[in-house]
Amino acid sequence: MARFDGRKPSELRPIKIKRNFTKSPAGSVMIECGNTQVLCTASIEEGLPPWREKSGKGWLTAEYEMLPASTGDRRKRNRGGKVDGRTTEIQRLIGRSLRAIMDFDKLGPRSIWIDCDVIQADGGTRTTSITGAYVALVDAVRLLQKKKLITRSPLVDSVAAVSVGICDGKVLLDLCYEEDSTAEVDFNVVMTGKNRFVEVQGTAEAGTFDADQMDAMLKSARTGLGRLRRMQKQALAR
Amino acid sequence: MARFDGRKPSELRPIKIKRNFTKSPAGSVMIECGNTQVLCTASIEEGLPPWREKSGKGWLTAEYEMLPASTGDRRKRNRGGKVDGRTTEIQRLIGRSLRAIMDFDKLGPRSIWIDCDVIQADGGTRTTSITGAYVALVDAVRLLQKKKLITRSPLVDSVAAVSVGICDGKVLLDLCYEEDSTAEVDFNVVMTGKNRFVEVQGTAEAGTFDADQMDAMLKSARTGLGRLRRMQKQALAR
Amino acid sequence: MARFDGRKPSELRPIKIKRNFTKSPAGSVMIECGNTQVLCTASIEEGLPPWREKSGKGWLTAEYEMLPASTGDRRKRNRGGKVDGRTTEIQRLIGRSLRAIMDFDKLGPRSIWIDCDVIQADGGTRTTSITGAYVALVDAVRLLQKKKLITRSPLVDSVAAVSVGICDGKVLLDLCYEEDSTAEVDFNVVMTGKNRFVEVQGTAEAGTFDADQMDAMLKSARTGLGRLRRMQKQALAR
Amino acid sequence: MARFDGRKPSELRPIKIKRNFTKSPAGSVMIECGNTQVLCTASIEEGLPPWREKSGKGWLTAEYEMLPASTGDRRKRNRGGKVDGRTTEIQRLIGRSLRAIMDFDKLGPRSIWIDCDVIQADGGTRTTSITGAYVALVDAVRLLQKKKLITRSPLVDSVAAVSVGICDGKVLLDLCYEEDSTAEVDFNVVMTGKNRFVEVQGTAEAGTFDADQMDAMLKSARTGLGRLRRMQKQALAR
Amino acid sequence: MARFDGRKPSELRPIKIKRNFTKSPAGSVMIECGNTQVLCTASIEEGLPPWREKSGKGWLTAEYEMLPASTGDRRKRNRGGKVDGRTTEIQRLIGRSLRAIMDFDKLGPRSIWIDCDVIQADGGTRTTSITGAYVALVDAVRLLQKKKLITRSPLVDSVAAVSVGICDGKVLLDLCYEEDSTAEVDFNVVMTGKNRFVEVQGTAEAGTFDADQMDAMLKSARTGLGRLRRMQKQALAR
Amino acid sequence: MARFDGRKPSELRPIKIKRNFTKSPAGSVMIECGNTQVLCTASIEEGLPPWREKSGKGWLTAEYEMLPASTGDRRKRNRGGKVDGRTTEIQRLIGRSLRAIMDFDKLGPRSIWIDCDVIQADGGTRTTSITGAYVALVDAVRLLQKKKLITRSPLVDSVAAVSVGICDGKVLLDLCYEEDSTAEVDFNVVMTGKNRFVEVQGTAEAGTFDADQMDAMLKSARTGLGRLRRMQKQALAR
Repeated sequence: MARFDGRKPSELRPIKIKRNFTKSPAGSVMIECGNTQVLCTASIEEGLPPWREKSGKGWLTAEYEMLPASTGDRRKRNRGGKVDGRTTEIQRLIGRSLRAIMDFDKLGPRSIWIDCDVIQADGGTRTTSITGAYVALVDAVRLLQKKKLITRSPLVDSVAAVSVGICDGKVLLDLCYEEDSTAEVDFNVVMTGKNRFVEVQGTAEAGTFDADQMDAMLKSARTGLGRLRRMQKQALAR
Repeated sequence: MARFDGRKPSELRPIKIKRNFTKSPAGSVMIECGNTQVLCTASIEEGLPPWREKSGKGWLTAEYEMLPASTGDRRKRNRGGKVDGRTTEIQRLIGRSLRAIMDFDKLGPRSIWIDCDVIQADGGTRTTSITGAYVALVDAVRLLQKKKLITRSPLVDSVAAVSVGICDGKVLLDLCYEEDSTAEVDFNVVMTGKNRFVEVQGTAEAGTFDADQMDAMLKSARTGLGRLRRMQKQALAR
Repeated sequence: MARFDGRKPSELRPIKIKRNFTKSPAGSVMIECGNTQVLCTASIEEGLPPWREKSGKGWLTAEYEMLPASTGDRRKRNRGGKVDGRTTEIQRLIGRSLRAIMDFDKLGPRSIWIDCDVIQADGGTRTTSITGAYVALVDAVRLLQKKKLITRSPLVDSVAAVSVGICDGKVLLDLCYEEDSTAEVDFNVVMTGKNRFVEVQGTAEAGTFDADQMDAMLKSARTGLGRLRRMQKQALAR
Repeated sequence: MARFDGRKPSELRPIKIKRNFTKSPAGSVMIECGNTQVLCTASIEEGLPPWREKSGKGWLTAEYEMLPASTGDRRKRNRGGKVDGRTTEIQRLIGRSLRAIMDFDKLGPRSIWIDCDVIQADGGTRTTSITGAYVALVDAVRLLQKKKLITRSPLVDSVAAVSVGICDGKVLLDLCYEEDSTAEVDFNVVMTGKNRFVEVQGTAEAGTFDADQMDAMLKSARTGLGRLRRMQKQALAR
Repeated sequence: MARFDGRKPSELRPIKIKRNFTKSPAGSVMIECGNTQVLCTASIEEGLPPWREKSGKGWLTAEYEMLPASTGDRRKRNRGGKVDGRTTEIQRLIGRSLRAIMDFDKLGPRSIWIDCDVIQADGGTRTTSITGAYVALVDAVRLLQKKKLITRSPLVDSVAAVSVGICDGKVLLDLCYEEDSTAEVDFNVVMTGKNRFVEVQGTAEAGTFDADQMDAMLKSARTGLGRLRRMQKQALAR
Repeated sequence: MARFDGRKPSELRPIKIKRNFTKSPAGSVMIECGNTQVLCTASIEEGLPPWREKSGKGWLTAEYEMLPASTGDRRKRNRGGKVDGRTTEIQRLIGRSLRAIMDFDKLGPRSIWIDCDVIQADGGTRTTSITGAYVALVDAVRLLQKKKLITRSPLVDSVAAVSVGICDGKVLLDLCYEEDSTAEVDFNVVMTGKNRFVEVQGTAEAGTFDADQMDAMLKSARTGLGRLRRMQKQALAR
């Protein structure tokens, strides 16, 4: 009755979070969730996008990309002037999730760029990106404080994300690629450290789902999110 | 305690669904939800996209666009080689929602194009598009049957969508633009006629939401979806 | 000897002009010419394009687009970074035609955007767009006057347009799609209320035409333009 | 009362037509009309565009471009994925004008590419392009006949073009740049050797024009076209 | 007299070559040269580009990209439809360098995609890419042999690359970013294991250089290339 | 033992340099090298690109393009939003080569645009472009001096370029197309009038080359460059 990789239904894959993976950006985190590997960086840029300038408040933008060889079949780069729909949707989700825990008044007139580049993909790249990007964002904020560019942290909460789905009628946490590609339903849940939802996205890829199934999935997701939160804290304490 | 336009918290705006609005496409529906007006068409194209050809199964693609003058400030057309992220996200949602109720084996080797063009925007354009596009899709399927191109209907259920949100701490159904732009939380719920979810997308635009609030929003959405389903049936019976 | 749709050679199709079709833009006109239906809007934008700024004079820009399902076979949207040649040519013609009757000194440092979106196409979409856009433009100018943003109207004349062609050797006014696609010669004539030409475009689609044929076509066009002018006046008087 | 460059109202600028200007293309003509200089080439490509394949008939496509330094202020190249509206309009006109004198059945399943690259611009580049491209096209056809790839010429007539306009109320033939940029009305007339119109495009750049003015312009154009036809014949006889 | 980072003029930075860095691609090599870090992957695709199909011979294409946060100031992604000139130039160089040591007859009708993604940039990213990509290519070829898809190796030699330049009049091997950005002359030398040049690119970034300086640079490059070759062999022997 | 066109191994093709070929640009040079013909223009633009503004120093940008019919098979125009890699590489080389002999302090806050448009291509278009563009640049500088916009010439040296390669094992100077397309090795050498290298680019198109071959090629290139320098001087003295 075990899953594809021997896990129990409510078990996360092994998580590794390495900070300071590269030197240039203010925050640089390599996060691994099973075989999924994402390099999440946070770069600080003085100044604001034009539409935001008047407000004097900071901003955060996220970009997401998969390296061509990160998946089984080589994936074409987004070079043709059109970013594919899936990529656009994911990077918008990452941006929203991180902005939800920011007090931009305290960031001041500067922009934070979050880049999530998938080195290896095995399901859950968008949720892993959010979980890792939060750690990179904390490092960037710490750097701003260390440089005395800001006095109080603009972070009002923490954030993490996890996927959960229904495969063969069973609720499974943290889907790997094989599970994800055959799941009937796929949920991505983004939640803060204070147990508040930022985003709940549930899609029936094949067929549909009822209210009871939705409750079971959300319960499983919350268990996983608690564990991810502890991993983030441990990484940030090192 | 009334809403911006005098409605009760769980009241939909007035709905109008006009079929056969234009002559060329197989299905052509002008749907109005309050001041939001969307022209939803369903066009049939013999043949399949290359990646789908082998399967011999049909396909459905949706495109969404807002006319430049559909909103308060004129909106630039998507002509620069990049479709903006919001548009991409919405048309992917419309496509998924309609594909969820299709049995593509029965459609055979042909494609259905759904086009949702917003004539006037006052909030809820994506959910109104789904509700209207379903009616256009039924008309296209009926035409295929009338022409004896297919024998059994590929439609296995009906589908409708509605928005619900939290404004000033209160749960409101079917947000108009003024409500939507100040909402703390915004949910889009897509549900079939058999009371099964296709998609649940909840986003905290400002702040976050807890589990109780989510339950209240979903309950309100289901009430509204029941009424929309009846409107679709009436329109299709005319 | 009657035409495809029973009309006489010099007879226009039935014309309907509905003002205030949508609420957001300053002018919003749905014009129908037989089965051709175009939504023409006029939006006001304070400020000028950079190259025009120094002059302090106003400007008017027109954009034209066909909804994908407005024609028999679904038409791909102009999203690939290249606007197709026909679309470019038509929107330039619409812009020139309306600018010809404007005194931009009186408009002041603001821009008017004309959007002509074809809802249903059955020939003559460019001429119908000009005739309808003029009415939307008058409404936009009236709004500027009502708001006391301008004191004198920048409109120095009215403008309308009509097509005329040669099919099977006969001069026909206001070609519908079936006529247009088999016409040997196709003329578009744009004329002001004071009987002055703004634009005369005659193209031999198949073969060529001589001077006598040209005279006959221009005569028929003038008859039609007189009637269109009366329709515009009636619509604006309501 | 003389014109800017001393010409009489109905006088063309000096014309030079050099054939075989470059070696690669089937036809290669440098045409000078006063200071306007255009390199017109005709290249033969076996095969047809996909949409034309079934017909088995030949095709002709024209492209027009100005070298960046051909005008007073350096002109940006069309490299951004968007060809500007003026360029698109002109190359469509050139293509239509040459296709009007071709019997594509006789050309067989091959394509002719006409390239008109403006080396120096001083007004009338589109009309000069058509006049020169015709000569290049004849050379390409002669080559096909010499190689015995076709037996009968697909050319059914000759074609030339000229501009005419109204400056300060006077009708002037073959406008140079200074005249063109101040003209109230600008006509381009494309006519075959058999005195039949292919295209008549008259635009009121500033203001409008009446029927009498139009007659006077067309008369002047026809005089000029007669002379251009003789120049083409002389060049082709050398 | 020491260099920026304490090295002697003809000393390479520390090199690390890790094979099998990710699991999906046939070859996956993380190469570090000082602080420069490049992930080089080799992916196999059955089939050939259209223009190559007839020949039946294999092909190799390289793409190069820098992650946005790999440099000091965040670098915009190549998403606008235009790949910047430097990127294009580098990926062409990488492709040529690897093709120079391939016998494509032996590869058969399949394509190898080389992707070099710079994780961290500190000068010499193009030469480090070539040196690392060679190792990934060997792994891909070994996989093809192990799967018995090819019988004999298409590799006829090995290849590596190094930079050398003149800073303050002194010849320095393997420039780091600080040296590279102030170098008067910058050479990239690509050489095979049999001491034969594939590419010699010397550019005077500021001023010019004479024949004696060129000789000194080439001599230093050859020393470095010998050492890189030994590092490649050791990595491939593990 | 003679070459394809009868030349000796170290013999240049016949060179013609015509100044003032067109009237608009500050410098306008048609250069012919055998059948290769390039129109090189230098245009002056007051002002600087944004990134250069602060410095107050001048700048020079080069663009290169081939007319579609300049080669045997018609070449598609660079209109799709992507400039092909070869074009990008060449125009960057032309720009670097001319900037190497400029003292931008003396140019002041203005930009020079170099445009090299290939009218006919028979090998060596990039080197011919550099040699011709230098002459156009001198004319532009002379114009600036004549207009008293600058007092001292920003030109600190002259520059010319030539190709050299190995065909069938023999070193050949100034390759024509037939030689270039079969050459085993292809070198482009850019050198100043003071015998200093600006750029040395050597590529083994098929196979590789050793140090002795490289020496022989460089020697032959220097002979040719001496002759080109004399041709430039003669042209500029006329």
